[in-house]
Amino acid sequence: MKVLIVHAHPGKDSFNAAMKDQAVQTLTADGHDVQVSDLYAMGFDSVPSAADFTAPLDTSDSLTIDLEQEYQFAQGEFSADIVAEQEKVMWCDLMIFQFPIWWFSIPAILKAWVERVMARGFAYGGGRKHAKGVFLGRKAMVSCTTGTAASTYAEDGIEGHIQNLLWPVTNGVFHYMGFEPLPSFVAFAPRNLSGEQRQEILQAYAERLSTLDSTQPLFMHPREDYGANQRLLPDVEPKSGFQWHDFENTEVPPISDEQTYLR
Amino acid sequence: MKVLIVHAHPGKDSFNAAMKDQAVQTLTADGHDVQVSDLYAMGFDSVPSAADFTAPLDTSDSLTIDLEQEYQFAQGEFSADIVAEQEKVMWCDLMIFQFPIWWFSIPAILKAWVERVMARGFAYGGGRKHAKGVFLGRKAMVSCTTGTAASTYAEDGIEGHIQNLLWPVTNGVFHYMGFEPLPSFVAFAPRNLSGEQRQEILQAYAERLSTLDSTQPLFMHPREDYGANQRLLPDVEPKSGFQWHDFENTEVPPISDEQTYLR
Repeated sequence: MKVLIVHAHPGKDSFNAAMKDQAVQTLTADGHDVQVSDLYAMGFDSVPSAADFTAPLDTSDSLTIDLEQEYQFAQGEFSADIVAEQEKVMWCDLMIFQFPIWWFSIPAILKAWVERVMARGFAYGGGRKHAKGVFLGRKAMVSCTTGTAASTYAEDGIEGHIQNLLWPVTNGVFHYMGFEPLPSFVAFAPRNLSGEQRQEILQAYAERLSTLDSTQPLFMHPREDYGANQRLLPDVEPKSGFQWHDFENTEVPPISDEQTYLR
Repeated sequence: MKVLIVHAHPGKDSFNAAMKDQAVQTLTADGHDVQVSDLYAMGFDSVPSAADFTAPLDTSDSLTIDLEQEYQFAQGEFSADIVAEQEKVMWCDLMIFQFPIWWFSIPAILKAWVERVMARGFAYGGGRKHAKGVFLGRKAMVSCTTGTAASTYAEDGIEGHIQNLLWPVTNGVFHYMGFEPLPSFVAFAPRNLSGEQRQEILQAYAERLSTLDSTQPLFMHPREDYGANQRLLPDVEPKSGFQWHDFENTEVPPISDEQTYLR
């Protein structure tokens, strides 16, 4: 299997870096090929702009990024840094986003990678989404950390369920483009843990990576469950994403009160 | 009232720019003071890094951004572009985020503004959040556009309810820091609308802005509804965010099937 890890943390000593290194080690030992896009180390350009194209159609005030992307993709005029990333995406069977949850979503540098690399024309457009997505047959997965305890991300937690916070990625990025989303791996508040506890999390992550073949993907309603207006048909029981009120299978571990970290 | 608009769209001819211009015009006519941070026009630096500080404590591989921010804020060592934005935030009574929903969340450049400007130390930290938030007494509001029709953002829509997609901003950014979040103003798929329809939306936005004093804020559970583990107490009925299953008051307009835009 070919695996692309898109890594979005600036610190080489960070727990995110340790998770990324663990993934490279485990996947390589299991015989897979791995590439890493280390966005901070690459100095990845984080603003979509006319500079994304070798021959911009529209450098005036009226830049409309997705339409410009669609035109430029047909012309083969993307900048070299974007082309390099698009080639990695086309190469991989599994794409892993490795990031810290900052402000309850993905870091700006990773969002910029999605906006610039997953360009209209290349990754979607013209009805190519979901069951007609460009990347059908490939898998994708979130591996992330939080700053606060698991309880704050429970169904009734103050920040809302982690599954819902990640839905714009698992559904809106992965599933939208045709990737099959695997359950997210979440390391809760590693900053509050002992070295031994952190090692346990890395071990659990290694086990997850070694058993991906038998891992049930996240449930996403098939297109035929939706009407022409893209709302669930009346006789379909809502089972995915924000519609999902059944959290029994979401792997938010029980935690003790003393693990709570008021920051 | 002093109003800060943080504007995150590159096109001066865009509908987002028209909404921003409408806000400036309406609020000024109503006697308010308005400042605009036009992030693309400013060339706002979109990667948190050691360059955010005039005298970085840690430029090694182990940069830990929030802890560095907390230290540097105490030293008064933020870079000039961050200080300028923080002064605008401290100045305002109302903060408006004006942006297109890209990939089901805020644009990278706006996320970067949050990560760099709303720095630990300045905007949160040491238990200062929610009811003890730094910006208590101020209001904040989302004004945004979508690429697809309102139906896809309905409770049973294929992308999930717009209220939930915006929860990381209304709760995770605004409410977390003590701002009182006002209901979001959403212009659905303006690209698909006629000039006359777009004008109607701008008019509705102007009316919203002229009636902010009488606008009921989004309901957020008070801190005493939560236990020490930051989960809702068992006898509290969930009414906010992802916990909120009552969507009757969320202003997703009914739309016709022909308004659906399969992109």
